[in-house]
Amino acid sequence: MLPIAIDVMSGDRGPGERIAGVVQALLADPELAVLLTGQADAIDTQLRAHPQGLRSRIGIVAASQVVAMDTPPRVAIRGGRDSSMRVAINLVGEGRAAACVSAGNTGALTAMSHYVLKTVAQVERPAIISAIPSEAGHTLMLDLGANIRASEIQLLQFATMGAVVARELSAIVAPRVGLLNIGEEDIKGHDTVRAAHALLLQSPLNYIGFVEGDHIFSERVDVVVTDGFTGNVALKTMEGLARMVGARTRREFATWLARPSLRRLAQGLDPRRYNGACMVGLGGVVVKSHGQADATAFARAVTLAATLGRGNLCAQVAQAFVSQGR
Amino acid sequence: MLPIAIDVMSGDRGPGERIAGVVQALLADPELAVLLTGQADAIDTQLRAHPQGLRSRIGIVAASQVVAMDTPPRVAIRGGRDSSMRVAINLVGEGRAAACVSAGNTGALTAMSHYVLKTVAQVERPAIISAIPSEAGHTLMLDLGANIRASEIQLLQFATMGAVVARELSAIVAPRVGLLNIGEEDIKGHDTVRAAHALLLQSPLNYIGFVEGDHIFSERVDVVVTDGFTGNVALKTMEGLARMVGARTRREFATWLARPSLRRLAQGLDPRRYNGACMVGLGGVVVKSHGQADATAFARAVTLAATLGRGNLCAQVAQAFVSQGR
Repeated sequence: MLPIAIDVMSGDRGPGERIAGVVQALLADPELAVLLTGQADAIDTQLRAHPQGLRSRIGIVAASQVVAMDTPPRVAIRGGRDSSMRVAINLVGEGRAAACVSAGNTGALTAMSHYVLKTVAQVERPAIISAIPSEAGHTLMLDLGANIRASEIQLLQFATMGAVVARELSAIVAPRVGLLNIGEEDIKGHDTVRAAHALLLQSPLNYIGFVEGDHIFSERVDVVVTDGFTGNVALKTMEGLARMVGARTRREFATWLARPSLRRLAQGLDPRRYNGACMVGLGGVVVKSHGQADATAFARAVTLAATLGRGNLCAQVAQAFVSQGR
Repeated sequence: MLPIAIDVMSGDRGPGERIAGVVQALLADPELAVLLTGQADAIDTQLRAHPQGLRSRIGIVAASQVVAMDTPPRVAIRGGRDSSMRVAINLVGEGRAAACVSAGNTGALTAMSHYVLKTVAQVERPAIISAIPSEAGHTLMLDLGANIRASEIQLLQFATMGAVVARELSAIVAPRVGLLNIGEEDIKGHDTVRAAHALLLQSPLNYIGFVEGDHIFSERVDVVVTDGFTGNVALKTMEGLARMVGARTRREFATWLARPSLRRLAQGLDPRRYNGACMVGLGGVVVKSHGQADATAFARAVTLAATLGRGNLCAQVAQAFVSQGR
C-alpha cells in the first residue's frame, strides 16, 4: 500500500503529541508507512524520542507553513500553498499517498481538500462522516459539519456515500440508512427532509425512514443522514454530555478507577476510540482528527485513514453513483 | 394559588402512573391543589389506591375524549373539543387553573395551546423550553420542538423569553444567553443564525454570542437558543446517549448499585429529574411531560407547572417585551 500522508503540524496541541500517535499506529500495524508533512527540523527533533527502527517507514515532506485554527477557508487556500495541510492533501492528489490525516481547522481542511481533490462522480458536495458509539457497536453519521445546509439531492447523496462507508468499515451488506428528523411520521420535519425522504424511498438503498436523535445510539440503524449544521450540533452535544458524565464519574469514583469493570465502561465511551472523521465524496481519502486529539486518539485517526486508503473508498463511491444512476 | 389542571389521560403509559405522580406532587407540596381532566370513573378508580386525605385537594373535570399520540395537530383542534388535553388547557384559558400539564402528543398540545391561549405581547411563536443538566446545575434550552424553523426575530424572541424563565426558575438576575451554532466566530453558521446574532448583540440581553453543542453542559451559559428542529435533535440525542450510558452502567455495576456514590451519580443524570418542558410565550402556562414519564417524572412536571404558575410567567414575558420594545 502507498504511505499515509500526515499533517503533524496542525491542531490544538503540539506536534509531539501527534508524532507520538503516528508512532503508536506504526507499532500496531507493520504494513503501515507514513509521510509526515511539516517543518523537517521540528519533526526530526520529535522523532528522536521514539524507536529508531521505525524510521524506515517514516518519510518527511517539507512544508514551511501551518494553517492556523482560525484561518478562514479561502485565506487558507490562497495563502497556504506550502502549508503542512496542503502538502499532505497534494500527496494524495498526486497519487503518492493512499490517504491523508490532519487535526487542523475543519473549514480549511474541507475547502482545501475539495479544491485539490475535487468530488467524484456526480457528488455535489463532500460530507464529513464518523462512527458514533452505539448499543450495537457504532453508528455512522454524516454530514458532521462540511455543509451548513444540504438540499434533498445532497442528502440522498450523503446516504449513498454513508452506505458505501458502512460496507467498507463495518462489512455490512445492506446498511440500514435513516434520515434524521424530529419525528418518525411522514408528515414530520421541514420541506427539505420530507423531499429527501421521498427520494430515499425510491432509491435502491436499504432506507428505513426517519429516525430521531436517540436512535443514533440504538441497534436499529447503521447510517444516520443529516445536514452539516444539525449533524455538527448533535456531535458536539454528545461530546459535551460524554465529557460531563466522564468528569462526574471520575469525581464519584476517584478511588475505584483502577477496577477493570470501570475501565471497561470508560473505554467503551472514550471519545479517543472514535477519533477520526472522513471526508467522503472526494477524489481521495482525507481524515480529520479532533484538534485536541492526544497521541492515542491521533493514532486512531491514522489507522482509520490506512483502513479507508486500503479499501479504495473513492472508487467504491464512484461505483455506487454509477449503479444508482444519480 | 389557583389549582393546576392535569390531563391524566394522555401519554404512552396508563393514567394510573400519572395519577400516582400527581399524588407524589401533592404529598410534597401542601399548598398544591389539582384539577384532573378525563373520564371521571376511570380517575376515581385509580384514586382509590391512594391516601383519601388528599381528596380535598383533587378536583375532577370530566372530558370524554383522549387525543391519540399520533393525531395530527389540526385534527386534534377540530375533533378533540372534549378531550382531556383540551379541557385542561381551557381551564387555564378560563382563569380557573394557574397552569396545565399533559404528557400527550407534543404537536397537538402545542397547536391546541396556541389556539386556546394565544401568544402574549408581540410574541410571534411560542417555544418549548426545558432544563438540561449541566456542570453548573442546569442550562435552559429553547426551542425544543414547537417550531421546525425560526426566523431571526423569532430567535431573538426565544432569547428574551428564555431569560425570563431563567430569572423565574433559577433566580439569575442577568442570565447569560448563547445562540447555538457550529462555531463561535461571527462568520460561522447560516444566514438566519448570523442575522439573529446581530439582533442579539444590539438587545438589552446579557448575550454572550455563539455557543456550540458541548457548551450546553458547561458553566458558561444559562440559556441556549436555537430553532425547534436543531433543539429537538439535540435533546433526543442527549436522551439517547444518557440512556445508553445508563444501561451500560447498570450492566457493569450490577452488584454495586446499592452504593450511595453510584446512586448520587445516577440521580444527577436521571432524566426523570428533568421531566417537564414549558411552552413559553402563550397567554397561560402549559407544561409538557415526556410521554413515557413514570410517576416520579410526572410529579416533577406537576411541580414545575406549580412553580411557574405561582410566578406569573406570562405577565413577566409580556413585561420583558414591553421593556425591550420588540
